[in-house]
Amino acid sequence: MTLILSNNDVDKLLSMPECIDVLEEAYVELAEGRGITRTRSDSIAPTQLPDAVYGLKSMDGVCPKLGVGAVRINSDIVRFPKRGNTVVREKVPAAPGNRWVGLVLLFSVDNGEPLAIMPDGVMQRMRVGGTNGLGIKYLARKNAEVVGILGSGWQAGSQLMAACAVRDIKQVRCFSPTRENREKFAAEMSGMLGIEVKAVDQPEDAMKGADIAMCASSSLDNIFFAPWVEAGMHITSIKRPEIEMAALRKADRIVIHNNDEKPIHVMTRDIELAETAKENGWNSVGELDFANLPTLPELIVGRAPGRASDREVTCFLNNIGLGYQFAAVGAAVIRKAKDGGFGHELPTDWFTEDVHP
Amino acid sequence: MTLILSNNDVDKLLSMPECIDVLEEAYVELAEGRGITRTRSDSIAPTQLPDAVYGLKSMDGVCPKLGVGAVRINSDIVRFPKRGNTVVREKVPAAPGNRWVGLVLLFSVDNGEPLAIMPDGVMQRMRVGGTNGLGIKYLARKNAEVVGILGSGWQAGSQLMAACAVRDIKQVRCFSPTRENREKFAAEMSGMLGIEVKAVDQPEDAMKGADIAMCASSSLDNIFFAPWVEAGMHITSIKRPEIEMAALRKADRIVIHNNDEKPIHVMTRDIELAETAKENGWNSVGELDFANLPTLPELIVGRAPGRASDREVTCFLNNIGLGYQFAAVGAAVIRKAKDGGFGHELPTDWFTEDVHP
Repeated sequence: MTLILSNNDVDKLLSMPECIDVLEEAYVELAEGRGITRTRSDSIAPTQLPDAVYGLKSMDGVCPKLGVGAVRINSDIVRFPKRGNTVVREKVPAAPGNRWVGLVLLFSVDNGEPLAIMPDGVMQRMRVGGTNGLGIKYLARKNAEVVGILGSGWQAGSQLMAACAVRDIKQVRCFSPTRENREKFAAEMSGMLGIEVKAVDQPEDAMKGADIAMCASSSLDNIFFAPWVEAGMHITSIKRPEIEMAALRKADRIVIHNNDEKPIHVMTRDIELAETAKENGWNSVGELDFANLPTLPELIVGRAPGRASDREVTCFLNNIGLGYQFAAVGAAVIRKAKDGGFGHELPTDWFTEDVHP
Repeated sequence: MTLILSNNDVDKLLSMPECIDVLEEAYVELAEGRGITRTRSDSIAPTQLPDAVYGLKSMDGVCPKLGVGAVRINSDIVRFPKRGNTVVREKVPAAPGNRWVGLVLLFSVDNGEPLAIMPDGVMQRMRVGGTNGLGIKYLARKNAEVVGILGSGWQAGSQLMAACAVRDIKQVRCFSPTRENREKFAAEMSGMLGIEVKAVDQPEDAMKGADIAMCASSSLDNIFFAPWVEAGMHITSIKRPEIEMAALRKADRIVIHNNDEKPIHVMTRDIELAETAKENGWNSVGELDFANLPTLPELIVGRAPGRASDREVTCFLNNIGLGYQFAAVGAAVIRKAKDGGFGHELPTDWFTEDVHP
């Protein structure tokens, strides 16, 4: 049977500690050349909605040790509106019922069969959180207990779950531009994590004295600035442009997720004219030579050095997502889903064939 | 509803003339920069079966005019056995029920929604046939009526269907190494096409006097040789190495499918050692500068010149498959499938989500 799982199923099947564990195991495989990941590609074309583009995004990964290959697909209507001072990248829920479209397909490395298909939302959030969690595990001070976070959305939640999974966090201070959002988020996360999560009115108030400074926004502009950097701080980001270059320069040690410089972009001719500037902005690498920065997998296997003292400023940039993460986290989900009771079981024959493709 | 179609459904929904028509329309869009295709990627890793590798292959394409984006995925167990004098690339049907695994996912460019999921077999065969059919339409002599074909498999069938769709073919002569296969194929195709299809005992017997020489094998070695080239012949191939370089040199005009030189290969460390030679062999371009040969879309819009005289030797190399073909042919299938009665209708909500991915 091929399993069709829902986000709700994935949510039940995957805890943050499990997500971090399986990612850690998989990154060792990646560092040793036994796991593989195919750079994300974005195919971008015009769509009916004004000021929007259609993006068909895909990324693949295979982890032989875990026995799983994954393809993650997004079929997005994307806009780039201004929110306050910053440009954000916004996916429009344009599918029937005002829904988004993202899928993960999991395959067996041993016989090729399609194991499961599911929406990507919960898994995508967990793997971003889990990856930044590993950044904290390997780079933040062991005694880190205060988190400042910029952002109060879907990603911010899993960032906090991850921080709490790898450090004994006592307090979180959260800033995001809209008061209502940050207060709602603080109340919810406080309940979920069982620690104090406080909404604050200025980003500086979130960052001052933070042991771990987390950026978890949808911004395409800088949101974390150099004056906020303090000795011993670990700074962590889910997207390249969040941290301004001057702040990165103050870091003693920067580790990135992967050396892929940017997604492969293929665009129709007209889109190339209209969107290149924004896309370039979004992928701007400034003065950093991303191709030569140490990566999280290298850090995990000890090939790249970690924090050398409690005074060091460390930084983890989750610079690009990997299809490989979905193979890893997908393997963990599948393992438990097989115990039964989850999702819809469809005949595998629907997704296989008796003719040589 | 998201449609789950079978190969049988696709077979009923798509005739070769329709396939050729929609591909022709889509190639115009591609030539004009309004359609886009993302180079195929092969992620290759070890698997349990001895002497085999696991390959997770994907390719994407978007045709805004037809309103469809496509991702085609193959999850293959691949072997490279010797068959007679040649090395072939063989996909092992290792999935439950001895089946292969290839999928096409179709999405709406207008709202992103998942329109359909189906096995890739029939569509993949039709688009290869249709593409080579367009090569014949734009390059072969108008009065071509004799086809010689090397190969008697799944692909050979759609090659003949395509030739008959664009030229008034009177006779086909077929050679493949195993007598039983070629005789069975000849009988079947003769019935299907309503013309004489004759199995012959030597490749030379198939090629001598042929107006159109078709290669449709699974060989990774040369199978078509220079002495067989005749004035006025159109030579057509579904895979790079089929035609030997000396034969290509005799062509007055060579057109390829696409300028992508080869798939993007990502491999685990051990596979890189074991398989690179074979993979390189398979993608060998010899002395031809593939990046600068004219392409089928350019030929169709008149940017590349076609046949100049009845004496010219022309050649079409279907050098690489494109995700874009699946967007085009998929659009034609979807259009008719919507009329109802085909496949399984699943709730679109299973493949969409209410959280921002």
